[in-house]
Amino acid sequence: MSDASPRLLECRWPFTKMEGLGNDFVVLDGVRRNFLLDPETCRRIADRHYGIGCDQILLVEPASSPDCDFRYRIFNADGGEVGQCGNGARCFALFVRRAGLTDKRSIRVETASGPLELQVHDDGTVTVDMGVPRLDPADIPFRAPAAANNYRLDLGQDHIELAAVGMGNPHALLRVEDVRGAPVAEIGPLLEHHPAFPERTNVGFMEIVSPHALRLRTWERGAGETLACGSNACAAVVAGRGWGALRERVRVELPGGSLEIHWPGPGQHLRMTGPARVVFDGVWQGLESI
Amino acid sequence: MSDASPRLLECRWPFTKMEGLGNDFVVLDGVRRNFLLDPETCRRIADRHYGIGCDQILLVEPASSPDCDFRYRIFNADGGEVGQCGNGARCFALFVRRAGLTDKRSIRVETASGPLELQVHDDGTVTVDMGVPRLDPADIPFRAPAAANNYRLDLGQDHIELAAVGMGNPHALLRVEDVRGAPVAEIGPLLEHHPAFPERTNVGFMEIVSPHALRLRTWERGAGETLACGSNACAAVVAGRGWGALRERVRVELPGGSLEIHWPGPGQHLRMTGPARVVFDGVWQGLESI
Repeated sequence: MSDASPRLLECRWPFTKMEGLGNDFVVLDGVRRNFLLDPETCRRIADRHYGIGCDQILLVEPASSPDCDFRYRIFNADGGEVGQCGNGARCFALFVRRAGLTDKRSIRVETASGPLELQVHDDGTVTVDMGVPRLDPADIPFRAPAAANNYRLDLGQDHIELAAVGMGNPHALLRVEDVRGAPVAEIGPLLEHHPAFPERTNVGFMEIVSPHALRLRTWERGAGETLACGSNACAAVVAGRGWGALRERVRVELPGGSLEIHWPGPGQHLRMTGPARVVFDGVWQGLESI
Repeated sequence: MSDASPRLLECRWPFTKMEGLGNDFVVLDGVRRNFLLDPETCRRIADRHYGIGCDQILLVEPASSPDCDFRYRIFNADGGEVGQCGNGARCFALFVRRAGLTDKRSIRVETASGPLELQVHDDGTVTVDMGVPRLDPADIPFRAPAAANNYRLDLGQDHIELAAVGMGNPHALLRVEDVRGAPVAEIGPLLEHHPAFPERTNVGFMEIVSPHALRLRTWERGAGETLACGSNACAAVVAGRGWGALRERVRVELPGGSLEIHWPGPGQHLRMTGPARVVFDGVWQGLESI
């Protein structure tokens, strides 16, 4: 074997497979042992035929600062480390309690996007503090002269009305009469790549059912239509409140399940509550880089 | 709860996830405990986001006849029980030895398609006796006046030359110069639904590299192009021998990996040797029908 090629050793890695609204994760306890997640190992684990199979890998590590309980890292299938993910955060909170790493119900974690507060409830649902929604166009980022509750964009032959909201990532929100017939696959990619969104955007199609309920389908930036995008659900509630159509507590129905969103209003933190579930515990027989 | 609705109980099912050439299986030890695999449970297990995720579920059961070691059952994700699968049979053979259910190297199993002989080798590969290939058109089934090594079919504007082979299921084989550029997605569905194949057909595109080696891509009946179809690899060797281009032992390279095929000739059993691998052991936290 040449010195240049990576050395691989057979390994047996304990893991837990979890899902939140159909967004699925391999969760690794990096507090009790070390895991070296190089891109090749991430690819092997995430592969749905040759590996365990997942959307993303969650790695629990000790916190580096004393005011956090854990460090929470997220790796994509290509090995790239990413920031916050609402569905993953709920799985993370259930995992650390179930694994006996903490008995706290209120857990503070370090993420690549900053610290995050998680609350575990008696019914197994978890509340995630999603921070303060950004409405200033420069923060989203979105090209517009000033903040507004509604914008009008050219889309080829047509004009389209939309809201734009930042939740750490950009969101465009369109109101539709019937979410089942919404043109997600047609309008989604056009808006994702529209020059008004310099970092591209997620696109939500929302049907407002009542002041306390909406149905949502999401075209996710870089991924197409997905079962449940937590940050888009949050952005939809912010948009609907801007239009005067929603109250402070809203239930959002997504194809993958439901979320409860609580947002008092501009400048305030938004909190998202939803389910997380253990699917199975396992021991992976893989190849580890050494 | 109404008496008509199925009753569900939380369960913890031990399982092993295995793969053979990228075809992946959840394997259950039904010798040591009972598993009730109703269609809803199969669907839950096979789901790649909410369940364990697999192409098929393999259930090991005690044999009903004294001259077999086990009964080997295969369930699709929709709960339908199917016949033989070469990739699954190799996983099955490794599983029963690893689980301590037998220490035999030569294992005889009952399948929905009849008894099957499996041989486990020192290197972890497994040989499966795939039976006697069928060349009589009525047995494939294929509409032709008499058996031949080559047939000519109308395909819209064009004619196409092909072999037709039965391996318990129907196969059409086309010789190509370069398998990478083969028109799998164009010709595959046209031949699959061609009236000459009354039960539709699998379609193999084979590049003969030497008398002992070929490269193969397969359009699988009802599934489209797949990583590795064992029976199509067998049929390709039968076709190539009919054309006088292949010898008795042939290595078949598929997108998912390699198989060794041994076929002495017409009227003889064909044997296929290939890999199988444990990916992980797990305990599924699911809902069981009671």
